[in-house]
Amino acid sequence: MTQSVTRKHLFDLPEGVIYLDGNSLGSLPAAVPGHVAGMVADQWGQMLIKGWNDAGWFAQPGRVGDKIAGLIGAPAGSVMAGDTLSIKVYQALAAALRMNPDRRVVLSDSGNFPTDLYMAQGLLDLIGQGHSLRVVEPEAVAEAIDEEVAAVLLTQVDYRTGRRHDMTALTGAAHDAGAVMIWDLAHSAGAFEIDLAGSGCAFAVGCTYKYLNGGPGAPAFIYVRPDLADTAQPALQGWMGHNAPFAFDMDYQPAGGIARMRVGTPPVIQMSALEQALSVWDGVSLADVRAASVALMEQFIAEVEARCPQLTLASPRDPEARGSHVSFRFAEGYAAMQALIDRGVIGDFRAPDIMRFGFTPLYLDDGDITGAVDILADILATEAWRDPKYQVRGAVT
Amino acid sequence: MTQSVTRKHLFDLPEGVIYLDGNSLGSLPAAVPGHVAGMVADQWGQMLIKGWNDAGWFAQPGRVGDKIAGLIGAPAGSVMAGDTLSIKVYQALAAALRMNPDRRVVLSDSGNFPTDLYMAQGLLDLIGQGHSLRVVEPEAVAEAIDEEVAAVLLTQVDYRTGRRHDMTALTGAAHDAGAVMIWDLAHSAGAFEIDLAGSGCAFAVGCTYKYLNGGPGAPAFIYVRPDLADTAQPALQGWMGHNAPFAFDMDYQPAGGIARMRVGTPPVIQMSALEQALSVWDGVSLADVRAASVALMEQFIAEVEARCPQLTLASPRDPEARGSHVSFRFAEGYAAMQALIDRGVIGDFRAPDIMRFGFTPLYLDDGDITGAVDILADILATEAWRDPKYQVRGAVT
Repeated sequence: MTQSVTRKHLFDLPEGVIYLDGNSLGSLPAAVPGHVAGMVADQWGQMLIKGWNDAGWFAQPGRVGDKIAGLIGAPAGSVMAGDTLSIKVYQALAAALRMNPDRRVVLSDSGNFPTDLYMAQGLLDLIGQGHSLRVVEPEAVAEAIDEEVAAVLLTQVDYRTGRRHDMTALTGAAHDAGAVMIWDLAHSAGAFEIDLAGSGCAFAVGCTYKYLNGGPGAPAFIYVRPDLADTAQPALQGWMGHNAPFAFDMDYQPAGGIARMRVGTPPVIQMSALEQALSVWDGVSLADVRAASVALMEQFIAEVEARCPQLTLASPRDPEARGSHVSFRFAEGYAAMQALIDRGVIGDFRAPDIMRFGFTPLYLDDGDITGAVDILADILATEAWRDPKYQVRGAVT
Repeated sequence: MTQSVTRKHLFDLPEGVIYLDGNSLGSLPAAVPGHVAGMVADQWGQMLIKGWNDAGWFAQPGRVGDKIAGLIGAPAGSVMAGDTLSIKVYQALAAALRMNPDRRVVLSDSGNFPTDLYMAQGLLDLIGQGHSLRVVEPEAVAEAIDEEVAAVLLTQVDYRTGRRHDMTALTGAAHDAGAVMIWDLAHSAGAFEIDLAGSGCAFAVGCTYKYLNGGPGAPAFIYVRPDLADTAQPALQGWMGHNAPFAFDMDYQPAGGIARMRVGTPPVIQMSALEQALSVWDGVSLADVRAASVALMEQFIAEVEARCPQLTLASPRDPEARGSHVSFRFAEGYAAMQALIDRGVIGDFRAPDIMRFGFTPLYLDDGDITGAVDILADILATEAWRDPKYQVRGAVT
């Protein structure tokens, strides 16, 4: 099965590396460096200001949004690329709270990525109307959705354990209770099939530098359900989301539809890298990607559990309850991960003790999995992680 | 004088073009395409996730901020690059209002760029505590700063006319009245010397794609006066501004100093283009740039007024009251600008009747000015602008 979706030839992978961190930063599609250099030289350099029209820079965030829409089960015209995921969370939550003005609770869970919680805290604090952020354990979300809840803000896949929420069920529970549902698809987009439109959720946000391989700091995206897109009130009223940005009116009038979720001038160079990177998805079935990912994960878990008894599975055992990464607990996980990286197997570490491995079938196959476990087993058997050099922590761990 | 700062060899300028729109989008420094391609291939492609430490991606926004600081009269450690100007305006104003909680008026002027006003409107609306945005004519700002004013938000140089505010005097007036001063340096940074620290203002923001030649959609920046940087409260509480982002705490704790103005994951590729672009400023004196810019503007105004009587100067005649662009009014300005662009002289148009020309002595000299006016005079004398093809308006005008 993995053979059918592996497209290693479309990626520029470093020699001697097995990359199990595409859930954090996706690999480089081989066509991107040339594309970006050409875009910079030919579009910025030669067209200069005319690039906004002639090279399609102005329309690019919507064009890229449409490409992403096709990968997350959303209709064309419902997704806009831009800014960072933090900003998109803020936009979605601010608009959601306007839709539910009589309620004061935002519900999230302890498996959410911290920036979502931080941005929510900052927003609620700014609004200053007694809103509170209720954070429960992931398993307790469904029962915590009550009539006080204005909005439910959840990341579908837990960044540490890979535990995956049931999007349809929780969206239904939110709607039954009169709450607005916001999904963060950071670890979902490009990892498996998503039926965003079918879920009925009001908003979704996500990033593109993980499974979508958009590059470091690639733009984020926001989805607004089409029937809400003309009334969702933007809190970040940037000129690019104005109904007529080049009329330079003194007063803000939101554009119709998803365009109102644009804020400032988009990062055209970075967006061009993303646009090119997304072309590796042409003709790829996410159902096939998902099947291949599950096969790689099952192989990895089986081999690790057979050969590395020092590690304990931290992810759900049932692949249906999981995204596309697998985590193991190990008390010396930080040092062990450094030793792994030193030998060319790149995963990452999340405090306090989680070794995290991402599975990206576009550029990984079963031979990579066996090769990675060979090295991991050797590091654990020889206790190579005891080397003092593996204890030193960098700025970004 | 212009000879001393002209560095055309550092730029990749299109053949046959005289570019008078560097106040909107700066020209391409010749080293950027190769630098970006190399960064993408070598850093993203080969280092992958390790680039955050090994290639210095994490530290890049502060490193770039320090480079910008040196060009705007700010100390190292007081400027952070990232996001868009709209977002940075929002951050600055939200923090300013927290510093002045008993006041309810934000003062700006009708010469401000619309997105600043829009972002302010959105913020005040969200806060919902009866704040209002008071917009007066640029000439009336000083007398409008009264004891109701919480914050004064001004763009130093008017994007249409080039009229320049007196930064020191207005900051002093704001402080005398107990208001927090925020300067938008969009048309200032890289155009002339700025003594930001000397002005005493609390916040400044700006963009880098104009005179700083950072490329389309290059990151913005924010300055916070150092004595305020540890207490300024961030409204956009992104994880990159957390005191310990990789501890993944559930609660937000702002980083010390300017780092708290970081929000989400920075656009590394776009930031790398900017970082390389800023190297053209090494060894350049902004006083020399300004003197050369004034010489070019004076030459342009004199030649246009002598040879193009159809046009009326819309900018202040005194160069001391002006930034680094010059505008003329002409009822058929839109069509005339299209005709100019068609003949290789690129300026831009701002409704209803403003033809705008930017002067960037790093890549313009006096021969360019005469060449541009030759063509402009011919277009006006022959009424070439009457051609119907010049009446068609693009998406971005």
